[in-house]
Amino acid sequence: MNEWNTKITSIKPNEILVRGYAVEEIMEKLSYAETVYLIIKGELPTPEEGKVFQAVLTSSIDHGVTPPSALATLNSTSTGAPLNAAIASGILAINSFHGGAIEDCMKLLMKAAEYTGHTLDPEKIEQFVKEKFEQKFKFPGFGHRVHTDDPRSIKLTELCMKNLKEEKLFYIKLAKMIEEKIFAVKGTKLPVNVDGMIGAVLLALEIPGELANGIFMISRVPGLLAHYYEEKKTQKPMRNIDQKSAVYDGPAKRSI
Amino acid sequence: MNEWNTKITSIKPNEILVRGYAVEEIMEKLSYAETVYLIIKGELPTPEEGKVFQAVLTSSIDHGVTPPSALATLNSTSTGAPLNAAIASGILAINSFHGGAIEDCMKLLMKAAEYTGHTLDPEKIEQFVKEKFEQKFKFPGFGHRVHTDDPRSIKLTELCMKNLKEEKLFYIKLAKMIEEKIFAVKGTKLPVNVDGMIGAVLLALEIPGELANGIFMISRVPGLLAHYYEEKKTQKPMRNIDQKSAVYDGPAKRSI
Amino acid sequence: MNEWNTKITSIKPNEILVRGYAVEEIMEKLSYAETVYLIIKGELPTPEEGKVFQAVLTSSIDHGVTPPSALATLNSTSTGAPLNAAIASGILAINSFHGGAIEDCMKLLMKAAEYTGHTLDPEKIEQFVKEKFEQKFKFPGFGHRVHTDDPRSIKLTELCMKNLKEEKLFYIKLAKMIEEKIFAVKGTKLPVNVDGMIGAVLLALEIPGELANGIFMISRVPGLLAHYYEEKKTQKPMRNIDQKSAVYDGPAKRSI
Amino acid sequence: MNEWNTKITSIKPNEILVRGYAVEEIMEKLSYAETVYLIIKGELPTPEEGKVFQAVLTSSIDHGVTPPSALATLNSTSTGAPLNAAIASGILAINSFHGGAIEDCMKLLMKAAEYTGHTLDPEKIEQFVKEKFEQKFKFPGFGHRVHTDDPRSIKLTELCMKNLKEEKLFYIKLAKMIEEKIFAVKGTKLPVNVDGMIGAVLLALEIPGELANGIFMISRVPGLLAHYYEEKKTQKPMRNIDQKSAVYDGPAKRSI
Repeated sequence: MNEWNTKITSIKPNEILVRGYAVEEIMEKLSYAETVYLIIKGELPTPEEGKVFQAVLTSSIDHGVTPPSALATLNSTSTGAPLNAAIASGILAINSFHGGAIEDCMKLLMKAAEYTGHTLDPEKIEQFVKEKFEQKFKFPGFGHRVHTDDPRSIKLTELCMKNLKEEKLFYIKLAKMIEEKIFAVKGTKLPVNVDGMIGAVLLALEIPGELANGIFMISRVPGLLAHYYEEKKTQKPMRNIDQKSAVYDGPAKRSI
Repeated sequence: MNEWNTKITSIKPNEILVRGYAVEEIMEKLSYAETVYLIIKGELPTPEEGKVFQAVLTSSIDHGVTPPSALATLNSTSTGAPLNAAIASGILAINSFHGGAIEDCMKLLMKAAEYTGHTLDPEKIEQFVKEKFEQKFKFPGFGHRVHTDDPRSIKLTELCMKNLKEEKLFYIKLAKMIEEKIFAVKGTKLPVNVDGMIGAVLLALEIPGELANGIFMISRVPGLLAHYYEEKKTQKPMRNIDQKSAVYDGPAKRSI
Repeated sequence: MNEWNTKITSIKPNEILVRGYAVEEIMEKLSYAETVYLIIKGELPTPEEGKVFQAVLTSSIDHGVTPPSALATLNSTSTGAPLNAAIASGILAINSFHGGAIEDCMKLLMKAAEYTGHTLDPEKIEQFVKEKFEQKFKFPGFGHRVHTDDPRSIKLTELCMKNLKEEKLFYIKLAKMIEEKIFAVKGTKLPVNVDGMIGAVLLALEIPGELANGIFMISRVPGLLAHYYEEKKTQKPMRNIDQKSAVYDGPAKRSI
Repeated sequence: MNEWNTKITSIKPNEILVRGYAVEEIMEKLSYAETVYLIIKGELPTPEEGKVFQAVLTSSIDHGVTPPSALATLNSTSTGAPLNAAIASGILAINSFHGGAIEDCMKLLMKAAEYTGHTLDPEKIEQFVKEKFEQKFKFPGFGHRVHTDDPRSIKLTELCMKNLKEEKLFYIKLAKMIEEKIFAVKGTKLPVNVDGMIGAVLLALEIPGELANGIFMISRVPGLLAHYYEEKKTQKPMRNIDQKSAVYDGPAKRSI
């Protein structure tokens, strides 16, 4: 008998335990973001960590029609793809260069931490940044082709500051200090972007880097679904999808 | 100039509006489930509707290693698949027969509603059920191969009763009455299962049936990610994955 | 014991039988196209049928960078996709509107055949075409956005005429007669395109229409692989792929 | 104007050139295997090289229901997947551990060639094999879980010997000598399997190793299509697919 073990979900008649918790208790008491955290990590976040993780998921739910994942879903939908093929196409466009900056930034932050002996010593961080520039290293997770001050990164930093315990803030602060030192060393503003700050948060929450793109996929699938549906309902099949000619005509800015 | 329109997300330097709301406000004020609802429907749910929709997402996050979507991810992971291939494989196994009962149940409930003239008239519902049995119709969303009283369906019904306005409860009640009448007519207990009750909720929230499998995918991707990671960390490549020999050895039942 | 049967390939130590034939005999005596035919249909083609089927596969191996399947592979490759994700993306863009004209044309030809009582009676075919125009039916497999005289369709017709037995030519001739009658009725030239003629060939070879898109996928995967490799070797990641700015700079026209 | 170049296929009205050759000439004069070679490498094979490459494609068209790619397609089909989702699932299960032995063997052969100074010096090869055993290296492409004398490998070797020029036989002979030396050194028979010999052939034909899995995909897609169709036509949806209970009931051994 060739048994194999799983620690994720226990299924018995009328009893479903996710990581040990009854699904009906989860449905009553946990947010979906907390449940995502639970199933991936195996343990519950604190409510405050849950809020930060929720903001991670929320921050990346969509970024319009230009990301390759959205284009992949639009392209496939335009050929008449069924829903699962359209969504899978989008997921297959999330790779090292799209979404991958999260994990790359995590590696950068870990290297920096090693360099500074896990301190926030400003001189050592500056030295680290200088060396990286000398090695012509690109800083993944810093700078953005559209946003000079990425509102998602700013809000995520703020939510971390408010919700995470002091000892969990190390990588958040490290990322911000690297941003400062890049400016000090080079005179260029390369602020931590949303990928970079998500990387810092995942390190704070001890979620492994090899799952980073998976977190991004979870966050983005609803956006892909929205693009699938809009394409199907409003466009002719087999059109030439030119991202540069897309025009936003949804609701004007409004408040919750 | 061949413009095309999108109403989903507006991207300007340092301003990202999802359905008109600034992403940083969303990150602060909305749950991830509410944000999913927003991006798909274009408008915010009430906080109470948001809770019900959140329970929909939470209810289906995983169902162990036996569903074809989990098996697809495990099989692909076992061959050395990168993360996106493993997750896309799982999504490509969500089709009419896996996840599809949600939409099928929505169609059944709409037919029943038409039959009763959008009332909850018990006699008409019984008549409808009788006719369906005579047509050898199978009731999608009713009965379950493992669960006689699906705890997810029970909790979802309860959360609807507590949170949804009276006028939104029509399809929830209709589903429960069909369950009753199946028992009355046939003597067999075929309770609304989780797919069936999610179908009723999507009708209550006016989310189109053709997106039902997409909602299921959103809910299930975190579960697939957990299976991907467990397989990669704990099993040898290219093993013979026999679902029947899987043994749960995770945490014993515990409370939040 | 829950056995299930397969008729495709028998595997024993040191013996592999594909549809009953030893793989080493196949490797020695059959072309790859004949082997594809064998595995799909279960029986060998005649050598002449094999030539026609081979021309089907060859005709559609690639059509440049503009088809959605090529764009999907390019888009995914540009994000750093591994080979299997890039190829799967291309396949997920082959659907009812891309590749689907083959099966749609098969349905049209079968309807026409039914209408004429499986004859090539010119008057009945003209009548059929007239009725279709009155119903504002579009003729799938007729006309092409780029080619007024599709060289693939012309060559495929010629190869059929030379290689297929008289009784297998019915659908080939029917397609050509519909082309004639469209011109007679409307004065517009809508020649059978490559999809249409492939449809006629699949009917002649009794390959089911529901496999038509599969034949197209088999034919096109090598083209997708070529695009994957060219993109990876010659382009920067995450570029904006605008099909309209692609320029062919390969070898000038040459002869075999 | 942001032009980009492609060398694969030139499309003009009524003229399609694949790597410079008119598609209608290709359809008339080339086998499908030769056309695959052409589109991937950019140049024609000799007729003899074309025969060997054809045998590569033919050798791997299917290996029954147990390979993960077949299981992925069966699993997805069983959930009601459309054809493209079912085929893409199979492709997403072709990775480093399934199909990957071809490229791994190519790397091994290149290392061995480097070690021997691109000679077939038996002593140096024996020394290489000894060192590899000391490093506890596994010999990818040697040995098979089912076949002690893989008929595909034997036939492929034979076809190479008959068709390839002496100077192209280096890697074929090297692979066979490594097989011999493994036996000499360890006393275990680990014959070159089909993946290993395909690796040697791809080296002989100068097809890059990073395309090896792509060649395997091209070869296997028809097999996946056959499994898709058989599953759809003969099995109930959502069945428990246990590879160990599959029984071959196709034609008994027969000759071409």
